[in-house]
Amino acid sequence: MSQIIKAGLVGVTGYTGMELARLMIHHSSMELVRVTSRAEAGKKLADIYPFLNRLPLGDLVITQPDPADLAEECDVVFLAVPHKTAMEIASSLLDQGVKVVDLSADFRINDKATYEEWYAVEHTRPELLAEAVYGLPELYLDKIMGARLIANPGCYPTSSILGLAPALAAGLIETDDIVIDAKSGASGAGRGKNVGSLFCEVHDNFRAYSLPAHRHTPEIEQEISKIAKTDITVSFNTHLLPIDRGILSTIYTRLTNELSLDEAHQVYTDFYADKPLVRVLPIGQLPETRFVKGTVFCDIGLVVDPRTNRLIILSAIDNLCRGASGQALLNANLICGLDMDEGIPMAPMMP
Amino acid sequence: MSQIIKAGLVGVTGYTGMELARLMIHHSSMELVRVTSRAEAGKKLADIYPFLNRLPLGDLVITQPDPADLAEECDVVFLAVPHKTAMEIASSLLDQGVKVVDLSADFRINDKATYEEWYAVEHTRPELLAEAVYGLPELYLDKIMGARLIANPGCYPTSSILGLAPALAAGLIETDDIVIDAKSGASGAGRGKNVGSLFCEVHDNFRAYSLPAHRHTPEIEQEISKIAKTDITVSFNTHLLPIDRGILSTIYTRLTNELSLDEAHQVYTDFYADKPLVRVLPIGQLPETRFVKGTVFCDIGLVVDPRTNRLIILSAIDNLCRGASGQALLNANLICGLDMDEGIPMAPMMP
Amino acid sequence: MSQIIKAGLVGVTGYTGMELARLMIHHSSMELVRVTSRAEAGKKLADIYPFLNRLPLGDLVITQPDPADLAEECDVVFLAVPHKTAMEIASSLLDQGVKVVDLSADFRINDKATYEEWYAVEHTRPELLAEAVYGLPELYLDKIMGARLIANPGCYPTSSILGLAPALAAGLIETDDIVIDAKSGASGAGRGKNVGSLFCEVHDNFRAYSLPAHRHTPEIEQEISKIAKTDITVSFNTHLLPIDRGILSTIYTRLTNELSLDEAHQVYTDFYADKPLVRVLPIGQLPETRFVKGTVFCDIGLVVDPRTNRLIILSAIDNLCRGASGQALLNANLICGLDMDEGIPMAPMMP
Amino acid sequence: MSQIIKAGLVGVTGYTGMELARLMIHHSSMELVRVTSRAEAGKKLADIYPFLNRLPLGDLVITQPDPADLAEECDVVFLAVPHKTAMEIASSLLDQGVKVVDLSADFRINDKATYEEWYAVEHTRPELLAEAVYGLPELYLDKIMGARLIANPGCYPTSSILGLAPALAAGLIETDDIVIDAKSGASGAGRGKNVGSLFCEVHDNFRAYSLPAHRHTPEIEQEISKIAKTDITVSFNTHLLPIDRGILSTIYTRLTNELSLDEAHQVYTDFYADKPLVRVLPIGQLPETRFVKGTVFCDIGLVVDPRTNRLIILSAIDNLCRGASGQALLNANLICGLDMDEGIPMAPMMP
Repeated sequence: MSQIIKAGLVGVTGYTGMELARLMIHHSSMELVRVTSRAEAGKKLADIYPFLNRLPLGDLVITQPDPADLAEECDVVFLAVPHKTAMEIASSLLDQGVKVVDLSADFRINDKATYEEWYAVEHTRPELLAEAVYGLPELYLDKIMGARLIANPGCYPTSSILGLAPALAAGLIETDDIVIDAKSGASGAGRGKNVGSLFCEVHDNFRAYSLPAHRHTPEIEQEISKIAKTDITVSFNTHLLPIDRGILSTIYTRLTNELSLDEAHQVYTDFYADKPLVRVLPIGQLPETRFVKGTVFCDIGLVVDPRTNRLIILSAIDNLCRGASGQALLNANLICGLDMDEGIPMAPMMP
Repeated sequence: MSQIIKAGLVGVTGYTGMELARLMIHHSSMELVRVTSRAEAGKKLADIYPFLNRLPLGDLVITQPDPADLAEECDVVFLAVPHKTAMEIASSLLDQGVKVVDLSADFRINDKATYEEWYAVEHTRPELLAEAVYGLPELYLDKIMGARLIANPGCYPTSSILGLAPALAAGLIETDDIVIDAKSGASGAGRGKNVGSLFCEVHDNFRAYSLPAHRHTPEIEQEISKIAKTDITVSFNTHLLPIDRGILSTIYTRLTNELSLDEAHQVYTDFYADKPLVRVLPIGQLPETRFVKGTVFCDIGLVVDPRTNRLIILSAIDNLCRGASGQALLNANLICGLDMDEGIPMAPMMP
Repeated sequence: MSQIIKAGLVGVTGYTGMELARLMIHHSSMELVRVTSRAEAGKKLADIYPFLNRLPLGDLVITQPDPADLAEECDVVFLAVPHKTAMEIASSLLDQGVKVVDLSADFRINDKATYEEWYAVEHTRPELLAEAVYGLPELYLDKIMGARLIANPGCYPTSSILGLAPALAAGLIETDDIVIDAKSGASGAGRGKNVGSLFCEVHDNFRAYSLPAHRHTPEIEQEISKIAKTDITVSFNTHLLPIDRGILSTIYTRLTNELSLDEAHQVYTDFYADKPLVRVLPIGQLPETRFVKGTVFCDIGLVVDPRTNRLIILSAIDNLCRGASGQALLNANLICGLDMDEGIPMAPMMP
Repeated sequence: MSQIIKAGLVGVTGYTGMELARLMIHHSSMELVRVTSRAEAGKKLADIYPFLNRLPLGDLVITQPDPADLAEECDVVFLAVPHKTAMEIASSLLDQGVKVVDLSADFRINDKATYEEWYAVEHTRPELLAEAVYGLPELYLDKIMGARLIANPGCYPTSSILGLAPALAAGLIETDDIVIDAKSGASGAGRGKNVGSLFCEVHDNFRAYSLPAHRHTPEIEQEISKIAKTDITVSFNTHLLPIDRGILSTIYTRLTNELSLDEAHQVYTDFYADKPLVRVLPIGQLPETRFVKGTVFCDIGLVVDPRTNRLIILSAIDNLCRGASGQALLNANLICGLDMDEGIPMAPMMP
C-alpha cells in the first residue's frame, strides 16, 4: 500500500476552499494536513464548517498561511486565494520543493503582457509562466503528470474549451464567428460580502454581467487558438443564474461545410473516446447543470441547425467542482502519481 | 365618466388566465364579468385562487365557455386557451360582434402555410389572418386602435422584436448573422402537469430546450423581416430559468459599420422616445428580469464589442405580463378606446 | 379634489425603503418629495433603482437626511433607519410639526426598561413613548387617525398578534401555553453585507435563528397581554426561508374548552368582519405566503386538533409590505386623512 | 476479499429510486443488478437518468418487476414503491429467500388496525408485521443485523424520533405537551404529476399541509412511546419548503424540571456517543438542512428557554438520503453483513 499524500490548502474560507474540503472527506490516498486562513486561524475546521462535525477533518486546526510550515508538512499545496496573492506564495513553495496547484488566474496566461492587460496588475514571477502547465487533463495529460506547478483552469474556460476543442481540431467550424453565451451559478462570484451577491438580489432574477470583456476571455482565446492553430477572437459573454453551482455554455458557431448532426456527433465521441470525464450525450439529449452537480464531468450536447448552417454546442460543468476544486484534485492526483480519478465524485446530487 | 368596459376571459386556470385576473383587480374602467373553465365551472374564482378572497373579483362564478353567453355579456373577450382551440372561439365571437384579444398563436402568423408547418395543425379560419392585427403597440399602435381581432404576441417574440427593431430599422446590423439566446422563467411552460415542470426538476437547474426550432421562430422572423424590409432567418434558441417570471434575451448581431456605443444608444433612445413602455437603459446599465417583474416594461441594454465588431442587445420582459396578459390588457384598452396604460402596473416586485 | 400629501423617506437604500418607493409609484394622493441616504445622496433614484427609469419618481434626487429640510418640504416622513437612529430624527421632526411614521422598533415598546433590556441601547426620548401609537389598524384604528407619531409594528408581531387576537379576546385558549413557530423570507434580514445573507448561504437551505430570544418577543407579549388582559409569556421562535418575501407563523395553542373548528372559525370571522385587510380563509384552506406577496393582507387559517385539544393558527403576511412599508403607508394614509387603503396594492404576484 | 452483494431495486423512477441509484455509484461492495419500472422497462438506466452516462450503472437495462427474476438474481431487494403495493412484493420475495428493505410504510406500524386506520387500506400480510424490524440503527442495531425484512423509517419520523429519544429516555420532558413543527423539501412529495408540485407553485412560496393529521403521526407516536414507556400523543405538523432536499423539525417540549442547556447537551452527547451518524452540535450551533444534504447524518441542536421552561430540539436530515434511500442502504449493509457506513456519503453538497 502506498503512502498517504499530505496536502495543504491556502485559503479555506471561500467556496473553492470549502469545496476542496468537501472532496477530501472521501479521498483515501490524500489527506489535508494544513488549512490556512488569516481571519479564522486558531479555530477548528468544524467551527466554521459545521458539516465537518464528527468527521476527522473537522478537528484540523486552521493556521496562518506560512510557506515554510506548509513546505515542511505538505507534499502538495492548493492555492485558493485571489490572483496576485497566489503568484508569490506559489513561488516560495516551489522553491522549497513543494508541488503547487494554483486555482487563481496567475499562471494561466502564457503571455505576461496579456495577463497584465486583463488583470491590471504586474506579474512578478514571469519566469514561472513558461513552466506552469495548464491543468486541463483532456488536453495536457502528459505534461500535467510531469509538472510541479499547475495553473488550474478557470471555470468558464473549462466549459468553453472542452466544448469547442473537437470542432476546432477537426476544422468543422469558422474561427471568426464564435459566440459563447455562458451562464453561471452564484458560487462563481465567490463568498465576498457584496450587495450584488445577497440572496434577495440574485434569487428569482437573471442578468448578464461583465459584458463585453470578462477576464476569462484571453484564457479561452489562448487555448482554442492553439487547438485551431490560428488566432481566434471570441465573443464571450456571461450571465448570473439563481442557482448555487453550475455553468452552461451555449456556443454558437458557423459550419465551414454542410454537416449532419450524426457526423458532428461522431467527431465529438471520437475525440473524447478515451477521456471518460467528458460525456458527449446521445443525439437528442441536451446537458443540464444538475446532471453534473458536485462532479467533475463535463457534459456536451450538440445541435445542428440547417436553417442557419450553425453548429450549436452546449457544455455543462459544475463551476466549483470541475471548474475549480475538483479539477484541482484531478491535477493533484496526477502530479502526485495517483490515478486521476481517485477520490473524485461521479454521482451528482439529483434532485 | 365613461362606462365600465365588460370583459370576458376564456381559460382562467392557466398562468396567463391567473395573471389577467391579477391585473383586473386594480383596473377601474374594465371589469371581468365572465371567466370560463371546463374543469372548474361552478366554483367561485376565490375557490381556486385564494388570493382573491375578500375582493369583489373573488365572488365571480366560473362558467362553461359558451360563445353566445360571452357575446351577450361582454364587450371584449380574452382567449387564454391553446392554439387551434382559440381560432374557433374567436371566429364565433367576432361573428357576434365581440372584440377579441387572442393570447394563442392562432392569428400571429400571416401566412397560413407557415403556421401549419410550425404548429402542425390546419388553420380553419384563414380569412381572419389578414384581419388580425399583431398586438405590439410600439409597432402597430394605429392599427390596433381600429382592430376587432388582436393576435397578442408571443413572449419570446415581444422581447426579441423590441430588442432588434431600432437596429434593423436603422440598418446598423447585418441581417444574416443574428443569434438570439433567450432564457425564460418556468411560468412560460404553463401550468400543465408534467414531470419536467416539477419543482425538483427545475429548481437549482438550468438547461436549453426546443433547439434549434422553437415555434416562436417564424413569428420573430416575420416581424423583423418587415422592419428590415428583407427576409431574415435567425438562430433562435431557448433556455429554462429557475425563476417564476421573466425573459432575458441576449441578442448577438454583427455591425454593418463601425459604431460607438454612444451612437447605438442614440438610435435606440430616439426610436423609443415616444414609446414609454420600452426603457432603453442608460449606458452601462444592463437589464435584469426583476426590474420588470409584474410590469409591462421592456428594458433594453446595449453593448458594443469593438474586438468582434458586434452589437449585443439585451432585452428583458416579464413573460406573463408584457409577454402575455399585460400586453393583452394594453391591447384591450386600445381597442376599447381607453388609455393604453389604464390599470397597468408599472411597479415591479423588488425584491 | 384634495391636495397631494407630500411625503419624505429617510433611508431609501434598504429593502423597506425600496418597498416604500415601489408602493408610491401608484399612489395618486401622496407623493414622495424627499428621499434621503447618506451614501447615495446626489444621485437620482433611478440610478440606484433602475426599475424606476422612465417613471417620474426615478428623477427624484436623493438628499442627505436633514430634519430642517424634511420639515420644510414634507407633511409626513417615513423613517426607514435602524433603531436608535430613528428616535432622534423622529423627535426633531415632531418638534417642527411634521407627522412621523417610524418603521424602527424605537417607539413600539411602551416600557422604557423593557426596550433597553431587549435592544441594549438607552432610550433617549422616553417622553414620546406614551404618545406614540402602535400602528396596527385592526387594533388601534381610532388612535392612529389622531396620532402624529406612529410606531409601525414589526413584521413578526404583525403576523403573530393578528393571528392570536380573536382567540385571546374570546378566551378560547390557555394563555400559558402559546408557541409561535415563525418563518420569514430573507428580505427580513435587510440589505446589509454579511455572509449569512449571501445567495449561496440562504438558497436551498433552511435554518432557525435567534432562538430562544428574538427581539420581537416583547412587542408580541405587550400587545397580546393587553388583548388577553393578563400577562403572557410566549415561546417565539424564528426561521429563515429561502424566499424573498413572506412570513408564515404557525401558532400552537391549547384550547380552554372543547371547541369545534366551525365555532373557532366563527369567532375569527366575526372578529375581522369589518376589517377587510385580514382574510380568515374558508375552513379547509390554509394560508400561503404567495397569496399575500406584495399586498397588505394578513391571511389566517385555522386548524383544530381534537387529539391534542389544540387550536393551531396559521397567519401569513408579506414581511416587507404588511410587515413594514405597506403598513406604514396604511398608517400614513390614516394620519393624513386619506382612506386607509388608498394606493395600496391588493393583487399579489402570482406566480 | 468478500463477494459483491447483488441488489435489486423495485421502482427506480421516483426520487427515492433515483437517490438509491446515485448512492450505488460509489458503493464498492454492493452492486445494483436489477432495477425495475413498469413504465420504463426496456430502456437503459442512462436513458432516463442522463447523469449515469459513461458510468457502468448507466448501462443496466430496466426490467418489469418480476419477483421470481429478482429472487434469482438478487441477495437483497429495495422496494421503492407505494404502500400497499410493497407488502405483496415483499412477501413474495421473502418466501423465495431474498432479504428485503421496504421503503414504504407497509411494515412500519406494528398494529394492523392502526395501519389500516391511517392508511385506509387493508393490510394483507399481517403475519409479517411482527417480524419486520424498524430500521432506525440508533435504536435497533442488533435486531437489524439479524433481520430479513426491514421497515425503513419515514423521513419525518427519522428526524422526530432521533430528536426526541434522548430527552424521553432520560425523562427530561413532559410527555403530554410535545409539538413538532416539521418542514420538508419538495422531493418529499414525490415525482408524481400534480399541479401542487410544479415549480411555479412551490418556488418562492411557503405553506403548511396535511394539518392536523399527517400519516407519519402514528409512526412517531409508536416509537417515542416505546422510548418513554408510556403512550404519547403528539401534535405533528408539516410544511413544504421551496428546497429540493432536507427536513428541519423544530420540536417544542416542556421540561419536567429546571435544566440548564449544559445539562441537556450532556444528556444528548452521552446518548449518541457511540452513534456516529447523529451529530449533537456544539452549544450555540443550530442545524441547517444544507449541512446534511446528500448525507445520512442527523444533526441536532438544543435550545433551553428559561422564560417558558422549554427544551426546544432542532433536528435536521436529508429526507431522501437519511430519510429514505441512504438509511435503506445502511440497513441493507447491516443485514448483508457489511459495515454499516460502507459506500455511504458523509460529505454534503456545500453550497
